Amino acid sequence: MIIKYEELKAILREKLIKLGADENTAEITATIISENDLDGITSHGTGRFVRICEMIKLGKIKINNTAVKVSGKGSLEIWDGQTGPGPVNAQICMNRAMELSESYGIGCVALRNTNHWLRGATYGIQAAKKGFVGICWTNTTPNMPAWGTKEACTGNNPIVFSVPYKDSYIVMDGALAQFSYGALGKAASNGKQMPVDGGYDSEGKLTTEPSEILKTRRVLPIGFWKGSGISILLDMIVSGLSGGLCVPEIGELGSSTTDERNLSQIFIAIKADRKTMDSKAESIISFIKNSEPAEENSPVYIPGEQSLKRQKIQSVEGIIIDDSIWNGIENRK
Amino acid sequence: MIIKYEELKAILREKLIKLGADENTAEITATIISENDLDGITSHGTGRFVRICEMIKLGKIKINNTAVKVSGKGSLEIWDGQTGPGPVNAQICMNRAMELSESYGIGCVALRNTNHWLRGATYGIQAAKKGFVGICWTNTTPNMPAWGTKEACTGNNPIVFSVPYKDSYIVMDGALAQFSYGALGKAASNGKQMPVDGGYDSEGKLTTEPSEILKTRRVLPIGFWKGSGISILLDMIVSGLSGGLCVPEIGELGSSTTDERNLSQIFIAIKADRKTMDSKAESIISFIKNSEPAEENSPVYIPGEQSLKRQKIQSVEGIIIDDSIWNGIENRK
Repeated sequence: MIIKYEELKAILREKLIKLGADENTAEITATIISENDLDGITSHGTGRFVRICEMIKLGKIKINNTAVKVSGKGSLEIWDGQTGPGPVNAQICMNRAMELSESYGIGCVALRNTNHWLRGATYGIQAAKKGFVGICWTNTTPNMPAWGTKEACTGNNPIVFSVPYKDSYIVMDGALAQFSYGALGKAASNGKQMPVDGGYDSEGKLTTEPSEILKTRRVLPIGFWKGSGISILLDMIVSGLSGGLCVPEIGELGSSTTDERNLSQIFIAIKADRKTMDSKAESIISFIKNSEPAEENSPVYIPGEQSLKRQKIQSVEGIIIDDSIWNGIENRK
Repeated sequence: MIIKYEELKAILREKLIKLGADENTAEITATIISENDLDGITSHGTGRFVRICEMIKLGKIKINNTAVKVSGKGSLEIWDGQTGPGPVNAQICMNRAMELSESYGIGCVALRNTNHWLRGATYGIQAAKKGFVGICWTNTTPNMPAWGTKEACTGNNPIVFSVPYKDSYIVMDGALAQFSYGALGKAASNGKQMPVDGGYDSEGKLTTEPSEILKTRRVLPIGFWKGSGISILLDMIVSGLSGGLCVPEIGELGSSTTDERNLSQIFIAIKADRKTMDSKAESIISFIKNSEPAEENSPVYIPGEQSLKRQKIQSVEGIIIDDSIWNGIENRK
């Protein structure tokens, strides 16, 4: 189906209010979900709405709780998300990191006891739009084997880097697994192969066949041992600084999809000199865009560029949402 | 050949002094190179010594220049490396980031006009040994095709994450290409295949054959589009914050191996609560170590663990250095 941004936002807001969300929480959450859909990232927008509703009903997301400061010194603060809604908490904490950056130069908030932030890019974009470099990451439930293991014993711990660019921004947002379970599931049900190896089959061989990877649950870290190593360090830093749960402890909460909660996140903002930042980014973009493409006549994209294009189109033409996702939301009482 | 740490350091120090280095610069540079070798990372230790000497002689490394503060506000400072020796500049700037972190909580130094830092882990370890979380990265000459291109139009921009751990540390240090040119060259001359796909052959197919990748120069970013995207953002941030050269501008200096200079680097230090950090890292390590190994009876390693083991062994038994590397150093006047 196709729906206008404002209409989508109003529907989601109303559903959240019916579930007990106050006006402000419902507004922020509905805005973030609708913006993710507008950018074409329904997997991290409406695609997770039913699960969010479920978690609110089960009391696993305490919908009207928001992050509060626990302690802090200068440019570094620790906040507690009080198991409130992930997008609201993340927005509060990136905002606070920006305030700290405004006062000190670089600012950092370590957040514990929060929930899934949906799309990490949201908070990188939030920082970049205000002229800050943004760096943030989250841990997750154990969902990726560390290098040398068969079991999901680390998280895919998505990380985000963003910079302001002229009247816009450039953002890179990626989990440290080559593909999400969502992407594997979608390909499997469409009978498609992954474009590159995404994990291991039951014989321990690399494969592009999503159904095999879904069987073994052995998804591939980006760069094999490299992505695995980064993921382990990100978890140590985020849990060690926030005092929140680390990946193994999140795993102890349970293994159902509604059990991924009480996550730990880091938000870093750095005040940038806009002129220097723009001029360097421009040189980098122009150099890359003018390089020989891997496939003839195939455009070369800068991180986030395709989402920005989609945003522009869907702002006018409306947002395309899979019927299966939309029916789930409509049937959700 | 096998050489004791102290002897290696003395030889390197003397050679640097003969090239005009003052006592302090020679001591720091020789120490860092020898420690990298001690950890088994000769590729980023003695393996680069001849090139360093060359660059000093050509005036491309100004051996007795060191980084000076350009500007700063609170927890964020910009420094200029004055094209001095990379390891000395990097050590100064991570040290300054730690001082800023001590005062403010999180501290950041953006460094421009510096040279190759050898092994990034050195500066992560420096921070972790003093009880700080360390995050640092560098840009490089264009040496990796951005996703969608055939030409080396971005850098492999190595990034480092480190945490203190009990009386030691855990460190992840990785370039964003799957393999370095050094590793490809070594495998090619030994007639070996890479353990996983490392780049593209001349038909545009992924390959483990190092000689093919060396021909096309199409090395693979970790996680394909993901590593490419991270690399582009790291370059934008490091050059945008420091005001130093970005990857395309470093490329303009020339394409010989002694032309990779005037790099830009970021050093971030975050004061950690040691007790929390240790307890979280311990949970993470124990969870991973107790997971089912991918290969039966194959040990599972934590990032940096193998280097620490090598360090212990080589501290007692001496450092193994390839004869080809050693002969190069000995013949270097």
